[in-house]
Amino acid sequence: MKVEMGRPIGDLAADAVDVDSEDEEEEAAAAERRRRITAAAGGDGEEELLVPPLNFAMVDNGVFRSGFPDTSNFKFLKTLGLRSIICLCPEAYPEANEEFLKSNGIRLFQFGIEGCKFLSSDIRDCHVQEPFVNIPEETIREALKVVLDVRNHPILIHCKRGKHRTGCLVGCLRKLQRWCLSSVFDEYQRFAAAKARVSDQRFMEKFDISSSKHLSTTFSCSKR
Amino acid sequence: MKVEMGRPIGDLAADAVDVDSEDEEEEAAAAERRRRITAAAGGDGEEELLVPPLNFAMVDNGVFRSGFPDTSNFKFLKTLGLRSIICLCPEAYPEANEEFLKSNGIRLFQFGIEGCKFLSSDIRDCHVQEPFVNIPEETIREALKVVLDVRNHPILIHCKRGKHRTGCLVGCLRKLQRWCLSSVFDEYQRFAAAKARVSDQRFMEKFDISSSKHLSTTFSCSKR
Repeated sequence: MKVEMGRPIGDLAADAVDVDSEDEEEEAAAAERRRRITAAAGGDGEEELLVPPLNFAMVDNGVFRSGFPDTSNFKFLKTLGLRSIICLCPEAYPEANEEFLKSNGIRLFQFGIEGCKFLSSDIRDCHVQEPFVNIPEETIREALKVVLDVRNHPILIHCKRGKHRTGCLVGCLRKLQRWCLSSVFDEYQRFAAAKARVSDQRFMEKFDISSSKHLSTTFSCSKR
Repeated sequence: MKVEMGRPIGDLAADAVDVDSEDEEEEAAAAERRRRITAAAGGDGEEELLVPPLNFAMVDNGVFRSGFPDTSNFKFLKTLGLRSIICLCPEAYPEANEEFLKSNGIRLFQFGIEGCKFLSSDIRDCHVQEPFVNIPEETIREALKVVLDVRNHPILIHCKRGKHRTGCLVGCLRKLQRWCLSSVFDEYQRFAAAKARVSDQRFMEKFDISSSKHLSTTFSCSKR
């Protein structure tokens, strides 16, 4: 599932329907406000402020998570000294982001996971039931291997909003770190908020770490 | 304002009224569920699970945040290899926690900040207006110095619920790290959720970092 920089995995994404359009408008407005604040700070001759991507947070030493970074976030991302980025969206990586990766020597690992299982023909149903997304287990396992490999650190994990796909990957990492399920869900919900999905939580609950336990010993908050 | 292990700052706390009793009940129930899960995992002969404190997160390299840790969290806290803890509550540190600090060689910095400005005589008003808390600026400045001193790392910042007092201290740290205000508030709200306070956000907005800028250069995500 690993692809090189900017190569999209199929074109299924074009058919995917996003059910969160109101949410997106809110987020676009918030992004615009942040851009204005940053511009204003620069315009006043003050030191320019940094704008972390939406839902940005540190997961563990050398591991970060966020929503999709845009150009306003590049200056901030530079401060992290990233070596790699895991993108969990199937769409082609935007040209500006590709350019940023190239000029900073950052490797892209793209693991395309659909954000919503509904295809355009299902749009009528989108508002009457929770969007159930099949998070593909094998893809998450492959992505986990990349996260656990310290040669890829510092690494940023992102999807579109940093809630569901990123939340599931980080949740599986927490299971490997032996966090109890309540704490895994607590963290997932902090980022997903009103958009938390039972199906995501069920995925994390079922995710079997018994075959991956040997990986967890090489990576932990305690190994500083 | 810095006190040594276990010495409470005054007894004002006894008069403070907590307006979030429902919230507390919910949290106590969640803690109990987590304790049961952990106990069950141990009882089955499986490897015991780790239980991070409520609202636990990594802030930056060597800096963590959370709500008040209890005995169920000690095993997890051990994995962080903490050198220090900043407690922002004015109450005496619980005996079990003191014992944990002693046996793990962890230094306690206590900066007592009231969680709610209402005293018992004000209880009638508590439900009709937002609890306005005067976060004492000088105390936050002193606590920030401790956070920024890498000799104290790894360090855990906590208050009672890891929302307001911890949120303000972390927010001021983010300003020093040149985060734009929107991102500072976004992070604060992720932890405070429905309990977010305008007064806390106003405190962070007004917090002047111009005299502390020299400190920020020694500490950042980018200095790994």
